[in-house]
Amino acid sequence: MLTLHIGNKNYSSWSMRPWVLMTQAGIAFEEVLLRFDSFDPDSQFKRQATALSPSATVRVLVDGELVVWDTLAIAEYLAERFPDKALWPQAVAERARARSVCAQMHSGFGALRQHFPMNIEASLAEVGARVLREQAAVAEDLQRLQSLWQDLLVSHDGPLLFERFSIADAFFAPVVMRLQTYALPVAPRVRQYMDAVLALPGVQQWVAAALAEHDFRPFEEPYRQAPTPR
Amino acid sequence: MLTLHIGNKNYSSWSMRPWVLMTQAGIAFEEVLLRFDSFDPDSQFKRQATALSPSATVRVLVDGELVVWDTLAIAEYLAERFPDKALWPQAVAERARARSVCAQMHSGFGALRQHFPMNIEASLAEVGARVLREQAAVAEDLQRLQSLWQDLLVSHDGPLLFERFSIADAFFAPVVMRLQTYALPVAPRVRQYMDAVLALPGVQQWVAAALAEHDFRPFEEPYRQAPTPR
Repeated sequence: MLTLHIGNKNYSSWSMRPWVLMTQAGIAFEEVLLRFDSFDPDSQFKRQATALSPSATVRVLVDGELVVWDTLAIAEYLAERFPDKALWPQAVAERARARSVCAQMHSGFGALRQHFPMNIEASLAEVGARVLREQAAVAEDLQRLQSLWQDLLVSHDGPLLFERFSIADAFFAPVVMRLQTYALPVAPRVRQYMDAVLALPGVQQWVAAALAEHDFRPFEEPYRQAPTPR
Repeated sequence: MLTLHIGNKNYSSWSMRPWVLMTQAGIAFEEVLLRFDSFDPDSQFKRQATALSPSATVRVLVDGELVVWDTLAIAEYLAERFPDKALWPQAVAERARARSVCAQMHSGFGALRQHFPMNIEASLAEVGARVLREQAAVAEDLQRLQSLWQDLLVSHDGPLLFERFSIADAFFAPVVMRLQTYALPVAPRVRQYMDAVLALPGVQQWVAAALAEHDFRPFEEPYRQAPTPR
């Protein structure tokens, strides 16, 4: 049985990727949530994460003796272990393209990620507008992201980035959540893509769980003093 | 024929990875060097890189119609295209581990990378000592890196990270160059690994070309006003 160790669903974008991938693809797994009590070295979270893998972070997949501790490595491992799920596009050129966009996401879009941490339950449109005005690098990231998506959406004429749901959509799901939370202005084609991602059952299940979490973590909240009243 | 587009060899750590991988594995390719004239949007470099791929950065592999624009994606593409080269370890568990460390490198060790940009021809021992004293995050990265390497070196009892040369060694080659340039204090086992990497013909060829470059780029030089006199 596969076990996926994750962090708080409202905040942990790295955890969301493999969780959505497996859920959406119908790969059974057990979930272990390591609550973000703090990121200090002696916090329970850090002690548990350090025991789990050399990266001392979450999104760790355990399969028997085997430990895979990074999102891209988890994706590649699952693609090999479940070939019938076709997690990557089947055609060589499309697979290379999908891997390129995932790897670009994995190490890039730094300004967007730094300024807009994932926060599913929050609505921070004013923050979004202000940061976008003040931070040229964020605006550049948003521009590049939209171009990247639009090129893929146009070339596949699809609601999703490739012919069918793939690792690439799971990789960008947390970015869709950010665009949503910070209400960033996007092109109509991009809005359609966001809606398609938000409609994926795997994403809906994650979002529902994140909204039910009610676990306000001040150190994950650069823009709020308290959770939004409901 | 494969074509690999790279940046300045003295500075471009992202370019070094696929170049060393292909050279060391004996995969023939043509090299195109896009000189770092500047990273401004209207620089020749940025215009060329933008035309090449959606990431507008270098280390772009072109194979006929196919464009692969990230190091990890290039590595996966090559591993599939040249299965006889065994670029990843053959055993499933080892392959998952190798992918985990590469992906960890790909998105992690941020403090080490930020404070110690690759600069092959420079000798910056004093900078290394000072930054290590002043930046706790850099010392933590160095500690984590050494643990990661030592675990792998011990478990394979090898000069390299896995049973034979793999993508993982190519991924860490630029880190070895940084440890060297900034003369960071490392454990004896780590020093042995550094020496093993520096002795790889693929690495030696890259280093020789970097040393012959003599192309001082001030915007890549946070710690020097001019190249070290020879």
